[in-house]
Amino acid sequence: MKYELNKNSKILIIGLGLIGGSIAKGLTKRRFNIDALDVNKENIDYAIENKFIQQGFTEVDKKIISQYDIIIFSLYPKIFVDWIEKYGDYIKDNALITDVTGIKTYMVYKIQNMLKNRVEFVPTHPMAGKEKSTIKDVDEKIFYNSNFIITPTDKNTEDGIEMCTRIAEILNFEKIVVLTPEKHDQMIAFLSQLTHIIAVGLMNCVNDKNIKYYTGDSFRDLTRIAKINEKMWSELFILNKNYLIDEIEKFECQIKKMKNAIINDNVEEIKQMMITSTKNRELFDK
Amino acid sequence: MKYELNKNSKILIIGLGLIGGSIAKGLTKRRFNIDALDVNKENIDYAIENKFIQQGFTEVDKKIISQYDIIIFSLYPKIFVDWIEKYGDYIKDNALITDVTGIKTYMVYKIQNMLKNRVEFVPTHPMAGKEKSTIKDVDEKIFYNSNFIITPTDKNTEDGIEMCTRIAEILNFEKIVVLTPEKHDQMIAFLSQLTHIIAVGLMNCVNDKNIKYYTGDSFRDLTRIAKINEKMWSELFILNKNYLIDEIEKFECQIKKMKNAIINDNVEEIKQMMITSTKNRELFDK
Repeated sequence: MKYELNKNSKILIIGLGLIGGSIAKGLTKRRFNIDALDVNKENIDYAIENKFIQQGFTEVDKKIISQYDIIIFSLYPKIFVDWIEKYGDYIKDNALITDVTGIKTYMVYKIQNMLKNRVEFVPTHPMAGKEKSTIKDVDEKIFYNSNFIITPTDKNTEDGIEMCTRIAEILNFEKIVVLTPEKHDQMIAFLSQLTHIIAVGLMNCVNDKNIKYYTGDSFRDLTRIAKINEKMWSELFILNKNYLIDEIEKFECQIKKMKNAIINDNVEEIKQMMITSTKNRELFDK
Repeated sequence: MKYELNKNSKILIIGLGLIGGSIAKGLTKRRFNIDALDVNKENIDYAIENKFIQQGFTEVDKKIISQYDIIIFSLYPKIFVDWIEKYGDYIKDNALITDVTGIKTYMVYKIQNMLKNRVEFVPTHPMAGKEKSTIKDVDEKIFYNSNFIITPTDKNTEDGIEMCTRIAEILNFEKIVVLTPEKHDQMIAFLSQLTHIIAVGLMNCVNDKNIKYYTGDSFRDLTRIAKINEKMWSELFILNKNYLIDEIEKFECQIKKMKNAIINDNVEEIKQMMITSTKNRELFDK
């Protein structure tokens, strides 16, 4: 095994948002030694106070960064790329780095090229979230029902992939799967980004506040994700636009087809779409 | 009080589908005497065997129908209108009838006109459902978290509305509200019909069965209603098209606005839509 993961491993988490913080908390719970870097001193203080981490730093320092065997980047995509551009050289030879970014093709190849073959970067996407995402919302249980996706390229080693699999197992993810970065981005455009766009769109249609009195739980379920971190998601949408616009347009076609069928009293077409949706939805039953 | 509701009241349910059957079961549980009429003998046999009802009939007979003080119609909208047209005269003077239909303006005025002032029809919509809707799926608990909407017109009396309110209370609905038929249909077009169209549309976009392996619970929640009774919902969509097409088009505009913002890298517009959706969604928190 090229990499080691044990209670003596030096592990650093960069970015104590909801995901970075929850990873810190989850790994600390299993008695790993976790340090963190975050520009916000309050986040570091909170994490130390609540015992998510051992030590924390607010500034990037070569002496510090170069100590770590494993670094988990929990940053927005562009900030992650900028970080590696500026400080990637600080990371020690043969360290393993990984990330939590929700889109992959935009940054995976860029970052692997910048690191050359000195440091291995295994891209991963823990598909977990919450409506709120401050350090106080940190909760390692968000991973328990979630999927962990590893999106390696031909620059990755079996050992690197194995290490990330073990981290996901320790964090108790429900399922761990391997996909290409391209397939990941296409899948995420449909399963996650499009559904967020739908929820946001629906909530932008609301102009009568009284409708809340007539709402059932299924409408609540459907629109829960309309509470959204606009800074992160606007970046993810734009960076994944090649795949996302395709998925939006396929969905628009289906809505238009249904609308026209209703306008034209085309009962058979409406029924056919419903028979298809019922059949397809069965695929997703647990 | 013009009407009486007690353990001696003669109550008939017409149509033992999911809703009719669940009302029968719920009222029987509270020791009311419930009879039922359903064209399907198996439904009647099942309901008697499982003690949802006392007596059952499969054919419309004036001698039978004219005995009842309260009749609850649990039929599809068109069949309900046809029934009243053919057999409305069988109902005894000063009886109270009510229904469970998911759209109102299409049939409320028609039926009240046919009944003249001899029989009072109080339209109601118990907003409950399930993915499956046979007699075996009957479950009075589907009402416990649901809204019960009464949509009276100026032909209705306070006593008639009070009776339906009491039935909803006995069935343990979470909330009982009164709306005009027009406001009901507009609200239902947005809150219920449009969301079903979205779920059906999304499921018609699925062409790669493998995506099921990467699906999280929030996608499951969002698409649960894509399993749909095509016979009932195609009828409801078409009969409510005046309101529904409006709501679909408002939603289409929002999706297009978001799509164009992504295409044009208009981060500010994307963020603004997300800030609005987050704020609006808060209205729906329980």
